[in-house]
Amino acid sequence: MRVAGLIGDCDALADLVLLRHAEALRGDIRMNCDTCAYRVALPGFLDKVGRPQTPHDHPDDPVGGHAHHHDGDAHQHDHGGHSHAHDHHHGPDHEPVLRPGQVAVVGGGPGPDDLITVRGRAMLDAADVVVTDRLAPRGLLDGLRPGVLVVDAAKVPRGPSMGQDAINDTLVRHARAGRRVVRLKGGDPYVFGRGHEEVQACAAAGVETVVVPGVTSAVAAPALAGVPVTHRGVAHEFTVASGHLPPGHPQSLVDWAALGRARGTLVLLMAVDTIDKIAAALVEHGRAPDTPAVIVEDAGHPTQRALPSRLDEVGALAAGVGVRPPAVFVIGPVAALD
Amino acid sequence: MRVAGLIGDCDALADLVLLRHAEALRGDIRMNCDTCAYRVALPGFLDKVGRPQTPHDHPDDPVGGHAHHHDGDAHQHDHGGHSHAHDHHHGPDHEPVLRPGQVAVVGGGPGPDDLITVRGRAMLDAADVVVTDRLAPRGLLDGLRPGVLVVDAAKVPRGPSMGQDAINDTLVRHARAGRRVVRLKGGDPYVFGRGHEEVQACAAAGVETVVVPGVTSAVAAPALAGVPVTHRGVAHEFTVASGHLPPGHPQSLVDWAALGRARGTLVLLMAVDTIDKIAAALVEHGRAPDTPAVIVEDAGHPTQRALPSRLDEVGALAAGVGVRPPAVFVIGPVAALD
Repeated sequence: MRVAGLIGDCDALADLVLLRHAEALRGDIRMNCDTCAYRVALPGFLDKVGRPQTPHDHPDDPVGGHAHHHDGDAHQHDHGGHSHAHDHHHGPDHEPVLRPGQVAVVGGGPGPDDLITVRGRAMLDAADVVVTDRLAPRGLLDGLRPGVLVVDAAKVPRGPSMGQDAINDTLVRHARAGRRVVRLKGGDPYVFGRGHEEVQACAAAGVETVVVPGVTSAVAAPALAGVPVTHRGVAHEFTVASGHLPPGHPQSLVDWAALGRARGTLVLLMAVDTIDKIAAALVEHGRAPDTPAVIVEDAGHPTQRALPSRLDEVGALAAGVGVRPPAVFVIGPVAALD
Repeated sequence: MRVAGLIGDCDALADLVLLRHAEALRGDIRMNCDTCAYRVALPGFLDKVGRPQTPHDHPDDPVGGHAHHHDGDAHQHDHGGHSHAHDHHHGPDHEPVLRPGQVAVVGGGPGPDDLITVRGRAMLDAADVVVTDRLAPRGLLDGLRPGVLVVDAAKVPRGPSMGQDAINDTLVRHARAGRRVVRLKGGDPYVFGRGHEEVQACAAAGVETVVVPGVTSAVAAPALAGVPVTHRGVAHEFTVASGHLPPGHPQSLVDWAALGRARGTLVLLMAVDTIDKIAAALVEHGRAPDTPAVIVEDAGHPTQRALPSRLDEVGALAAGVGVRPPAVFVIGPVAALD
C-alpha cells in the first residue's frame, strides 16, 4: 500500500497518512495538536494575552500554554504551582521540564508502569507527542493527557518496525514544529536502546535533547525475581551483553571468549534465540557447565516466570518451555542465592 | 559515649537513644510513631471501630490507619481513592503498596530526587519508618509525611556508619512492631548496595520484603554526562565493577586481568581511591593506554563535573583535580562519542 500524487514521495509524510488511515479504520482517531484549531495564528492573541502567540498557546490558557482538552473532557493538568492540598513532593520544584521544540529521550523502565522515574513520568505529562516502541511499557500511554499524539514506531507501515532514520526524522520534525516530544523506550535508553543515535540525530538537526535515565531490565528483571546481580563475597562485578548477534557473527563486538573466562555475573538481554549458542561458547571458553543460571521472563508482570537452571542446560530449558521475549538470562553464582 | 544501666546492653536500643539525644541537641525532634499516644492499646477501640486495634490505628482514621498529623499540621495524605481533580496517573491502581510489618528495599536512584521510580516514591509516601544511608538521595527525606521516623544509618553513633547487623536489626525490629519500613538506598539496591543481605536477614527473621529496583548510577551517571554505556557499532556489552577493593586485594573477586582483555565499556563505582591502581592493572593486561575515559562526579546535580581523559592519565587527573565521591569512571570508546 502506497500513497501517491497529492503528498509526493516523502516517506515520513506517507507513513503518517497511513497511520491516521489505520487509526480511522480502528475508530480511535483522537483530536491532537496536529489538528487543533489553536495551532494556527489567532487574530488578536497579542492584545488579549499580552505577548506573541507560540505554537502551544490556547487563548483560555495564557500562562503555561499547556492544558489541552480537545475532547471536551474537563481534565486539567496544571504544571504550574501546586495549589491543591495533596502534594506529591516530586522534588524541589515542579517547573515544566520539557520545553517546546525539545526532545526528551526517556527510559520507561523494565515493564510495570510505576517503574518509570518520577522525572520520566513528568516528561510524559508534559508531552505533546510521544514516540513509543515495542519494548516501552504500553500502560504508560494510557496515562497521557487527551490529545497527545502517540506515534507507535513498532506499528507504522513499512515492515515490522520503523526504520531508525524514520524515527529520527519523526523526532526532529515534531520538535521543529515547536512540540514537546518524548521518545519513550523500555528500560534505560542507553542500554541497547539506540538512545544515543537519536540524540546525535537531533543534535545534527539543531534540536535540543534531554536524556532521562531509566531502570534497566538488566538489573531489575533479576531483582524482581529475587536475584541480585552483585552480592558481597559472591560477585563484585557484572557484565551486561546483548545476545542479538550470536557468537561468531561478523558484526558482533562481544568477546564471548573473554566472558567465558570472567568470574562475575553475566546478564544477557535479547538472547532468547541465541542462548544455546552463547551458553556453549561460554562453556567452551572456561565457564563451569554447572554455573547457576536463571531465566526471567515478563519481569514485574503477573505473567512473570523465573526458571532456575545451569549454564549447560539453560538453552534446552528455554527452548523446551517456550520462553519468549522479553526475557533476561542471568548466569553466575548469584543465580543460586536464596 | 555510652548509655548504661537503665536500658541495659542492647546496642540497637542504645543507638536509638543516642540518636534521639542528638536530635534533641539539634532541636529537631519530631513526633513520630514511637512516641504517639495512639500506639498504645485504646480502651473501646473494638466497639468504636468494629475490629481489633492494630499498631497503626488512629481512632479518627479507622480505615487505612495511616494518616498521621501529630505536629498539628493539617497535611493529609490519603492513599485511598484519588478523589481530587488532579490525577498523576501513577499506574493502574494506587492501592497502599506497603503493608504493616513489611520492609521495602528501595533504590533511590543516582542522586536527583526525581530519578527515583514512581513506585519507590509511593513506598516512601506509605512509610512509617525510613532507614536511609549515606548514598541515598537526601532530598527524598524532605518529602516524607510529618511524623515519619527517619533512621540515618550513616549518622547513628558507633563509628562512621552503622554496622550491617545493626541495620538489619533495625529493619526487623520496626517491621515486627507492625510498621511500614522503607530501606532507602542510592542507585539500585542490588548494585553494590548490600540489598540482598538485608532481604536475607529479614527473611531469616520471618519479615516480608519487597524490592523496588532503582536507576543505577552505573548507567545513569554516564548518561547524565552524555555518555551511553552501549552504542551500536561501538560497544555491545558493558561491565560494572566495584573499585572498593584495589587489584591484588585478597578479598577482591574482580578479575582485573580479564577486564583488561575485554573490549566492552567498563564502568567503575567506588573507585576514587583506587582508580590509579585499577587503570595500571587494565593497561598491564591489554587495554590500550589511550582508551578514552571520563570521570563523572556528582551526576545529575548542579555541581556535576564530567572530565574527559584517557586510561593512562585518568588516575593522575582524578588526583590532580581532587575528584570526590560520588564519582563514576567510564572507560571505553563510548567515552569519546559526541
